[in-house]
Amino acid sequence: MKRPWQGQVEPPLLTTVPRHDPHNPLCPGATRANGEVNPHYEGTFLFDNDFPALQPDAPSPGPSDHPLFQAEAARGVCKVMCFHPWSDVTLPLMSVPEIRAVVDAWASVTEELGAQYPWVQIFENKGAMMGCSNPHPHCQVWASSFLPDVAQREERSQRAYQSQHGEPLLMEYGRQELLRKDRLVLTSEHWLVLVPFWAVWPFQTLLLPRRHVRRLPELTPAERDDLASIMKKLLTKYDNLFETSFPYSMGWHGAPIGSEAGANWDHWQLHAHYYPPLLRSATVRKFMVGYEMLAQAQRDLTPEQAAERLRALPEVHYRLGQK
Amino acid sequence: MKRPWQGQVEPPLLTTVPRHDPHNPLCPGATRANGEVNPHYEGTFLFDNDFPALQPDAPSPGPSDHPLFQAEAARGVCKVMCFHPWSDVTLPLMSVPEIRAVVDAWASVTEELGAQYPWVQIFENKGAMMGCSNPHPHCQVWASSFLPDVAQREERSQRAYQSQHGEPLLMEYGRQELLRKDRLVLTSEHWLVLVPFWAVWPFQTLLLPRRHVRRLPELTPAERDDLASIMKKLLTKYDNLFETSFPYSMGWHGAPIGSEAGANWDHWQLHAHYYPPLLRSATVRKFMVGYEMLAQAQRDLTPEQAAERLRALPEVHYRLGQK
Ligand SMILES: O=P(O)(O)O[C@H]1O[C@H](CO)[C@@H](O)[C@H](O)[C@H]1O
Ligand SMILES: O=P(O)(O)O[C@H]1O[C@H](CO)[C@@H](O)[C@H](O)[C@H]1O
Repeated sequence: MKRPWQGQVEPPLLTTVPRHDPHNPLCPGATRANGEVNPHYEGTFLFDNDFPALQPDAPSPGPSDHPLFQAEAARGVCKVMCFHPWSDVTLPLMSVPEIRAVVDAWASVTEELGAQYPWVQIFENKGAMMGCSNPHPHCQVWASSFLPDVAQREERSQRAYQSQHGEPLLMEYGRQELLRKDRLVLTSEHWLVLVPFWAVWPFQTLLLPRRHVRRLPELTPAERDDLASIMKKLLTKYDNLFETSFPYSMGWHGAPIGSEAGANWDHWQLHAHYYPPLLRSATVRKFMVGYEMLAQAQRDLTPEQAAERLRALPEVHYRLGQK
Repeated sequence: MKRPWQGQVEPPLLTTVPRHDPHNPLCPGATRANGEVNPHYEGTFLFDNDFPALQPDAPSPGPSDHPLFQAEAARGVCKVMCFHPWSDVTLPLMSVPEIRAVVDAWASVTEELGAQYPWVQIFENKGAMMGCSNPHPHCQVWASSFLPDVAQREERSQRAYQSQHGEPLLMEYGRQELLRKDRLVLTSEHWLVLVPFWAVWPFQTLLLPRRHVRRLPELTPAERDDLASIMKKLLTKYDNLFETSFPYSMGWHGAPIGSEAGANWDHWQLHAHYYPPLLRSATVRKFMVGYEMLAQAQRDLTPEQAAERLRALPEVHYRLGQK
């Protein structure tokens, strides 16, 4: 962190997004690329991605002729979920009941697509810096016929820990962080937010329920309300850190589902990862390049320093405080 | 690749870099952050990074009190290597003998630091988009007291393949790609360049010697000349793809060295990875975000399509052709 920065600064953010733009395919009443017209939705709105990366009928690559050349079909569906009818809000600027509606929609889509697919990946790319090409508040849901790489790694680690220690890895981890305190960012009746011991991004966080919960649909109404409230607090702190609409990718991980949903997945604990790129300011990011790509992640500040900075930030959004 | 792109475009490149800037700490004769004055070097120039991420005397974190909280000291040294005295050139604009001098310097620094450290990571971050904060042509060398994560994974895979199949994984892989041809980009007497079967970045490539070579210092003079020439061709194709100074991170991987250098590392094959971010144009990159960070890499074009486009490009640099 001591070296002077003469490298790339990110282009400034669009400061004014119109509340409604009839040409934005994510807005209520707009026409999408496939010719469909969006309803005049008033809460969340889920629809099929017009440019899906996964398709239900992807062809099989056929048998492999060599151990080093193995390919498999990747089948699935890709959906888009709008969080709100307005384009000029983001989650931290929405009300707790509006965020609660998003939580409910996440739980429903997990159930709906989880009836058929073993993995339902909910993720939000927020901000142009994170490859988001549309400012309207939304996330994506990609359900797949296979466990993706990261899911497989989490499955292996959690299964091994449970069989060695007799309890879920992330239950013990959360309990330890509550005792140790120096990586905690926020706690509430039902949830914890912390900068994980293994964080690679400067202000990376992990959001964990206190109770043993395997998947989003299992959350009780009280846990869902509390989740909406702690998410609003976390995302407000993020925006306040550099007084900007803080970019990130985030996503939920829970136990595999689909036809194997009935198996024993008790080693899994539901959680969300937040991966935000900013390091020094609203325009200077951490670059995961050279050494990180070729050798190993290395941090510019410690997780404890990051947690301390996030803890100290107000829970009132800098754009709402002036009122 | 079919979806319209309304997302972030990268800021335009600095088009004119002065050949010599007395305030640039990488230039001959300039004063660095620690007060040292650079020699008036005429070829390559190696010096200690003034802001090292690894230090030889990093303190030990002490014993761990819990299986989930394990830390170890990371010791090492960080060096910077300038490729050329001029700031306004890049490797593809340098002559083959000048690039050969870089290859020799890479081999020497591997030997020098490999006398003490088990892993010597040579890497180049090229371009502001890849977090490079100084336009002067240079790379970095970070030597560490441990095998970094990626090195450990390559060690495991290559060792397992050798013990199962009796020959180095990357020797068989290179031979197969020569037979299959559709992922080849360039071949020469001693080297291959291909878009690997497992590529995640759009125009990612792998550079492999044809002979079984474990580390850079083992390369013969003829192999070094040929490497300089094939690197010039590859990097010229890269620049020609979007008529820009093509950004990338690249680095060398070879057998571990240090005090264990004498052990049997015959399962290792020397290679370089090139990870370039651009996807559609000089200003529109691939974003490795949401799904990629939380689930699995997914490509926007196939490795075969990428190889075909690179193969078709001229081997004369677009900025040198006009002469
Ligand atoms: O050492 P530099 O060029 O200042 O820094 C660059 O390379 C490092 C090693 O890959 C990264 O950790 C930094 O994020 C990046 O900006
Ligand atoms: O689907 P989008 O928002 O167009 O695209 C974005 O998210 C995808 C999933 O993480 C990435 O593969 C793309 O590189 C990124 O630009």
